[in-house]
Amino acid sequence: MINRLTIVGVGLIGGSLARALRRAGWCREIVGSGRQLEMLQLAVKLGVIDRFDMDISVAVAGADVVVVATPLAVMPAVFNHVQRGAPDAIVTDVGSVKQSVVRAAQTIYGKESPRFVPGHPIAGTEHSGVAASFATLFEGKRVILTPLPSTQAAALQTVMQMWQQTGAMVEQLDAARHDEILAATSHLPHVLAYALMNCLHELDGTGQIFNYAGSSFRDVTRIAASDPALWRDIWQANHDMLLQMVDRYAATLTTLRRAIRDHDVERAMEMLTRGKALRDQYFQTSESVAVAGSHPSETVDK
Amino acid sequence: MINRLTIVGVGLIGGSLARALRRAGWCREIVGSGRQLEMLQLAVKLGVIDRFDMDISVAVAGADVVVVATPLAVMPAVFNHVQRGAPDAIVTDVGSVKQSVVRAAQTIYGKESPRFVPGHPIAGTEHSGVAASFATLFEGKRVILTPLPSTQAAALQTVMQMWQQTGAMVEQLDAARHDEILAATSHLPHVLAYALMNCLHELDGTGQIFNYAGSSFRDVTRIAASDPALWRDIWQANHDMLLQMVDRYAATLTTLRRAIRDHDVERAMEMLTRGKALRDQYFQTSESVAVAGSHPSETVDK
Repeated sequence: MINRLTIVGVGLIGGSLARALRRAGWCREIVGSGRQLEMLQLAVKLGVIDRFDMDISVAVAGADVVVVATPLAVMPAVFNHVQRGAPDAIVTDVGSVKQSVVRAAQTIYGKESPRFVPGHPIAGTEHSGVAASFATLFEGKRVILTPLPSTQAAALQTVMQMWQQTGAMVEQLDAARHDEILAATSHLPHVLAYALMNCLHELDGTGQIFNYAGSSFRDVTRIAASDPALWRDIWQANHDMLLQMVDRYAATLTTLRRAIRDHDVERAMEMLTRGKALRDQYFQTSESVAVAGSHPSETVDK
Repeated sequence: MINRLTIVGVGLIGGSLARALRRAGWCREIVGSGRQLEMLQLAVKLGVIDRFDMDISVAVAGADVVVVATPLAVMPAVFNHVQRGAPDAIVTDVGSVKQSVVRAAQTIYGKESPRFVPGHPIAGTEHSGVAASFATLFEGKRVILTPLPSTQAAALQTVMQMWQQTGAMVEQLDAARHDEILAATSHLPHVLAYALMNCLHELDGTGQIFNYAGSSFRDVTRIAASDPALWRDIWQANHDMLLQMVDRYAATLTTLRRAIRDHDVERAMEMLTRGKALRDQYFQTSESVAVAGSHPSETVDK
């Protein structure tokens, strides 16, 4: 149970967390903060938060737990305000990249950062804003916490329990490993989808060609409808790892291209068969879940 | 109205066409043919076809229209059987590549091929076989016909009307333009998805990494669950055009990679913003349709 929770950045993720915790009765009070007055007013109106203050250091005063759910780029500044307003609070974040956030937190909270618990819920939709938030967003989804060796056990426990209330599966990883995994499974796929939209634009500037695109194209590019600023930030924050992944991907693509070019049917079939086998093995269940899911919005992690 | 329709290859596409035409009452009799006895028996049992004969030239005898819905690789042999059994029938196909099919048909039916109407319904799912077929598969989907200058107007009209009965939007394109459009909107995305599955396999042979993949990865790679043999054939059949598209894509990916590498935020944002704008512009409607659709299977064109 959390007495007072402050969420800085009451958008899709922050708003959905507030809704889930409210539904679970896990917080006595939820306070919001952020830069957009209308968003915060809407959040109160929707019953997502109890009250708000646009001054972060005021909003976090007396909070037991602070969740930073802002874009990555502003997190360093946010941590600064949080530290001034609630020096003893347990602080966690929802950033899609963890090493850069840890570095930012350490400049504010010190190398040890005992009460800072880096976190990342692998959940989302291509929509943003509190109006798009819903209480079941995290159900059955993974939340990865990347504590430092110096993170207090009690702080880690509090953040873990908070996420468990949302129905998420919480697990711990090393921050570098997290960033590698997410570069491969999320940041790279977004690069590929945005590149595909641009490639077809270069091919046919009139856009006519998109009228012939079927559901396969629609699925592959759905994540290209995500917020550009968000992805600009993620790509910057996970810069080195992402470049490595793009290079790995380009190498695999070259291999497959060569098999096609050389009519190397055996090699092509090997890659096709492996691709299908892995897809069938690892995604059968989640697909059924997605189809049976009650929320109409298609989901997309960041 | 068609008196006798023969469908060679009663799988997902052939079976769905039969179901749709039956629902519309557009055929007095639907005969099946193919190489898999069990599939044909199941098709009769499911009421998809009235009867079948595994000998294609027998199955097409007396048919007014023959639909060739087999894999691309066997179409030349199938056309040969069809020509022997029903030399006067109107013949159409559902192949995902049109120039190679036209060439194959011309070796059988002659350069003029007046009663051959090349066709391609841009619809499908990642499942195959008659058990996966359903009458509404083509509703609201595009069917592209690529008639030759020598195609008989009456033959074209018959095939056009047949597809209209399924609820599809029928339109005509030049075969080369069709192959270019499909290379870009369908064949390339499949290459990208299969390459992504293989790339992560090369990164982590244990498959552990796939457990962290969220819905964005799931969407981008869904089409990698498609039938490998089908895609081997399509890639072979649209070889030159596909290679061109892979090269175009690799160039765009290199441009985006460079923007990320050089922290060229302006260029990255330009590509991100354009990608999102085009995605929002061309796919908003189809997405709502997909969500509201009554059939539980996610669809994928070939």
